[in-house]
Amino acid sequence: MSHVLIVGAGAIGAFYGAILKRAGWRVSVVLRSEYQVVAEYGFTFTHSPLGDLSWRPDGVYRDGDVLTDAADYVVLTSKVLDDLDRGALLRPWLAPHSRIVLIQNGLDIERAVAEALPQHELISAIAFVGVSRTAPGELVHNSYGHLSLGCYPSGISDSVTALAQALEQGGIAAKAVDNVVRERWLKSVWNAPFNPLSVLGNGADTVQMLDAPGAESLVRALMAEVLAVASAEGHDFPPNLIDAQIAGTRKMPGYRNSMALDYLAGRPIELQAILGNIVDIAARHQLAVPHLQTVLTALRIRQWPAAQPV
Amino acid sequence: MSHVLIVGAGAIGAFYGAILKRAGWRVSVVLRSEYQVVAEYGFTFTHSPLGDLSWRPDGVYRDGDVLTDAADYVVLTSKVLDDLDRGALLRPWLAPHSRIVLIQNGLDIERAVAEALPQHELISAIAFVGVSRTAPGELVHNSYGHLSLGCYPSGISDSVTALAQALEQGGIAAKAVDNVVRERWLKSVWNAPFNPLSVLGNGADTVQMLDAPGAESLVRALMAEVLAVASAEGHDFPPNLIDAQIAGTRKMPGYRNSMALDYLAGRPIELQAILGNIVDIAARHQLAVPHLQTVLTALRIRQWPAAQPV
Repeated sequence: MSHVLIVGAGAIGAFYGAILKRAGWRVSVVLRSEYQVVAEYGFTFTHSPLGDLSWRPDGVYRDGDVLTDAADYVVLTSKVLDDLDRGALLRPWLAPHSRIVLIQNGLDIERAVAEALPQHELISAIAFVGVSRTAPGELVHNSYGHLSLGCYPSGISDSVTALAQALEQGGIAAKAVDNVVRERWLKSVWNAPFNPLSVLGNGADTVQMLDAPGAESLVRALMAEVLAVASAEGHDFPPNLIDAQIAGTRKMPGYRNSMALDYLAGRPIELQAILGNIVDIAARHQLAVPHLQTVLTALRIRQWPAAQPV
Repeated sequence: MSHVLIVGAGAIGAFYGAILKRAGWRVSVVLRSEYQVVAEYGFTFTHSPLGDLSWRPDGVYRDGDVLTDAADYVVLTSKVLDDLDRGALLRPWLAPHSRIVLIQNGLDIERAVAEALPQHELISAIAFVGVSRTAPGELVHNSYGHLSLGCYPSGISDSVTALAQALEQGGIAAKAVDNVVRERWLKSVWNAPFNPLSVLGNGADTVQMLDAPGAESLVRALMAEVLAVASAEGHDFPPNLIDAQIAGTRKMPGYRNSMALDYLAGRPIELQAILGNIVDIAARHQLAVPHLQTVLTALRIRQWPAAQPV
């Protein structure tokens, strides 16, 4: 029975913590603003298709606390933002044998953590889950929950297998994958075009991004650039992938992705993790990605301080 | 002494009307919402570096009126918007000998009017002027005023010369040009990149569009695409033009262009006139303009109706 410590448990952390708790694992959390309410009441899920997911952590910690009960897995579920030093966030909570688990969005998001903490096994996980926080310590799980996980940069270790089994036992599909980086490229084929474009469109939904004049062509061009960079990195995908992604998106009713919702709510967006890293990798391969570059730079312009107040 | 009729006199129309009035020409206007106030009080300029520009039109008309006093020049100074039928707007006010004068922004904006009203001489004018409306019939002239004008598609007629002379007599620099289309391409090298990009940046100023990471490179790439399309149309410019435009922009304090101000004020933007027409011409030449295309399409996505209310 392993001990898992989730650092900065937001909605994603609270959800996967609940799943591992249902599998019988010990699960603790490190919190800031929600420390008091979670220490007192635990996490309350007001809705989930999986039944009542409410749970109480085995330990609730905050900055400066010392962890006497060493964690086998230290899980980070935060957003990946430029000004967040994830190595510094994880370091105080790691025992020598602790594995690090990143359940985070984006591409090439493992490297900074691997470089900061090279002595720890690093597990990368890609989550497909609709869960959101409605109040301090209170969450709604709307849909999905499955994830893919594997060692970074590749392989499936015993720790990965054990974690995947516990997640399955807790009630979700967890696939151990031999090449998690490839899985991130696959997810990026959709996310790198649609997420930042929705922000440029001031919260555009999928219908706008497919039906506006020229929009589907633009999305296809962005996807083709992502695939070209993936290929330069050694990850090739079937030629009909773009058609399949467009068709799949058209099948769903129009919706706003999480980056669009973050933008509309005034929260920071994971621009570098979702798009910037891909453009940087393209530059290392001297690959031209003019459509991706334009979307990225337009958003960087928006984020840059104005000379003139509005 | 010619008679000029300005249709839909906004700030630009009120300004050039004032200049022609100072030259001793008869100047009338066709108005909608400001009909009453202008009929009663004329146009009031609360500020101008040229002195008091306030003036009273010789005639004030509105839709449905019949013009008994035929106009030698019928001037249109409206924005160029997709849903505005400029031919229909001009037609009721034209006598057989009337020349049409377009003082409007954008590229390839003459063609629709030339096709709708082929029997009239068409003069195209490019204005460089900072003038804005502060209340009904009330204006502020901040800066500049000079313009270039010529026959569309090319040439300098006697009507052009007479109009330019009157404008000069009224106190501004008016240059009759043999190739007004080329002048529009030149102005587009700055406007087609900076104006729409400022809107994508939610009102970004020139400092943001040059100093954000990757921004100057993007502006240069957009300018290079405009120059490539211009060249395909037979208009070549000196190779150092981009450097000169960037250097000139850097010399000025950061400022928001008129499209950025329109966007921030919730007014419609001249997206097709400033950028869309250039992308359409590129397509006719089978020229790839991925940076321009991305900027254009991102704005079209923003303008497209959302499936999901925010």
